[in-house]
Amino acid sequence: MENRTEVSSIGEFGLIEHLTKNIEIKNASSLLGVGDDAAVIDHFGRQTVMSSDLLIEGIHFDLGYTPLKHLGYKSVVVNLSDIYAMNAVPTQILLNIGFSNRYSVEALDEFYAGVYAACDTYNVDLVGGDTSSSNKGLIISVTAIGEVAPDKYVKRNGAKANDLICVSGELGSAFLGLTLLEREKRIFEETGAQPDLEGQSHIVGRLLKPEARKDIVEYFYEAEINPTSMIDVSDGLSSDILHICKQSNTGCILYEDKFPFNDEAKYFAYKLEVDPTACALSGGEDYELLFTVDQADYEKIKSNPSVSIIGYMTDPSEGKHLITRGGNKHELIAQGWNHAKK
Amino acid sequence: MENRTEVSSIGEFGLIEHLTKNIEIKNASSLLGVGDDAAVIDHFGRQTVMSSDLLIEGIHFDLGYTPLKHLGYKSVVVNLSDIYAMNAVPTQILLNIGFSNRYSVEALDEFYAGVYAACDTYNVDLVGGDTSSSNKGLIISVTAIGEVAPDKYVKRNGAKANDLICVSGELGSAFLGLTLLEREKRIFEETGAQPDLEGQSHIVGRLLKPEARKDIVEYFYEAEINPTSMIDVSDGLSSDILHICKQSNTGCILYEDKFPFNDEAKYFAYKLEVDPTACALSGGEDYELLFTVDQADYEKIKSNPSVSIIGYMTDPSEGKHLITRGGNKHELIAQGWNHAKK
Repeated sequence: MENRTEVSSIGEFGLIEHLTKNIEIKNASSLLGVGDDAAVIDHFGRQTVMSSDLLIEGIHFDLGYTPLKHLGYKSVVVNLSDIYAMNAVPTQILLNIGFSNRYSVEALDEFYAGVYAACDTYNVDLVGGDTSSSNKGLIISVTAIGEVAPDKYVKRNGAKANDLICVSGELGSAFLGLTLLEREKRIFEETGAQPDLEGQSHIVGRLLKPEARKDIVEYFYEAEINPTSMIDVSDGLSSDILHICKQSNTGCILYEDKFPFNDEAKYFAYKLEVDPTACALSGGEDYELLFTVDQADYEKIKSNPSVSIIGYMTDPSEGKHLITRGGNKHELIAQGWNHAKK
Repeated sequence: MENRTEVSSIGEFGLIEHLTKNIEIKNASSLLGVGDDAAVIDHFGRQTVMSSDLLIEGIHFDLGYTPLKHLGYKSVVVNLSDIYAMNAVPTQILLNIGFSNRYSVEALDEFYAGVYAACDTYNVDLVGGDTSSSNKGLIISVTAIGEVAPDKYVKRNGAKANDLICVSGELGSAFLGLTLLEREKRIFEETGAQPDLEGQSHIVGRLLKPEARKDIVEYFYEAEINPTSMIDVSDGLSSDILHICKQSNTGCILYEDKFPFNDEAKYFAYKLEVDPTACALSGGEDYELLFTVDQADYEKIKSNPSVSIIGYMTDPSEGKHLITRGGNKHELIAQGWNHAKK
């Protein structure tokens, strides 16, 4: 009798581990393989960083409220974010797109206008890929390529106890934007009422047209900061800091009162009776950079207003915890802080 | 009023041209962009070749008769074929896969067993990518990366009049395999009769488990042959030689009696009353290398039993033609030789 193991029983990260655990690297040029934000390939002394993502209609985006131009822009940006998360500079992308024959050339032009706008903003070249018909809705796959000075790439496994945990920008807003758009969509379907997005442009923009933190990587170079580990916040702060802790073999302490929020986002969260902290921990799609630095870099980091120090690394034996505003200590779990599941 | 242009009105290649015509290359390292088998990126003097493809269930493969292991193998090979078509050697791949929650871990293991088998055969490393759930059937995107000595990559635009047109291996067999499997599937659906694939293992294998022509690229290096242009035969000989002619600004003459066929495939074609020449011209999925060489390389090429010389390039004013066994001259058209459409 054949065995049957449900994917749900081992989870996404368990599955990736399972499927890739027996990889034996054959080429000396494969410096870093599966398991980080991007792969690193040696090209005769200089290093190339590569990352690839798949975006499927109905899973990763809803065309009901996502303009095609924004989708094109975002498809590129989320991949560039992985390149920056390696402390590298993106240079090229390859784009594959599958679309139904219901699409007009003008609709595809809209999508590509967004792709090219992102290429311009981040100074990358679209150099290849594939177009295909699809009977399965819109499917997008982007591969991003970047460069990094020899051995300057930053992995997830270099953090050590007492390193400062830092994050760029703000957290949770994209998830609030998603919550708002899903709510307005439901209301529209039920009542025909047009969406009321007034005063919410910030959180909607954070979801539909995110930016990658090019500026932070440039700041690292200027200020001569070498983060000890880095990841981009795509799955939620909780899940992403746990990736770093696992790969670096550390524990961590996060302070809720240090989390960076946007005022408009916070206002909307309270209106909706959602906890902004839960959005930060479990929401995802922020595309901010989460990184650790040695304590010696404290003064340098403090001088950058776009960076918040939100905690520090510990010995692994101390576990992974959040200290709330009220002073309570909660264990961080992969699906997010457990309050998020209330 | 908004314009609406149907994609079908400009065709796949017209669409790609339309969507990419305004690209301005910003990075000096982007040596070759959209419009060939793969992109070429300069890495400080050495060159990297990259190609990416999207495979969608129901468009590119039918799980009704495609074992998952074969599908994993083929997903890798079709991308490696693009790297070899640049005269480069593949070194790494990135793999994205989207699958429904109906899939068991064992089913994914089967798929990955095929992926790893291809990696072993071609000595490439799987270094990254993304897994995702899909509500749209199985979706696969592979990006392949390869290396080539400086300026030794072979594009589609270097052929000149009087160059010999050569092709590796055999043509049309994969299309015959597809025809057979589609026929058996129809019979099974209508009558419940189990497929009769006896004596047809060759053509079925050519479709389900193709190989990329690593050996030909190795031969070029050993024999010091520099093809003037090259492409892999994925859309059918007719479409692919027309790509070379267009980009090289040449005409061509192909000789039907020089086309390489496999005996089993030819036998099956006659049984089915299908013209093997039409299969070669319009079938596609052969993953052979179609290339041109200077006449000075004639003796070298002749000595390789895996290569057939099937015609020669001409001035563009002479057009693109096939000379049949009977001595008739037919114009080659993008959808294949017009007899194929009978």
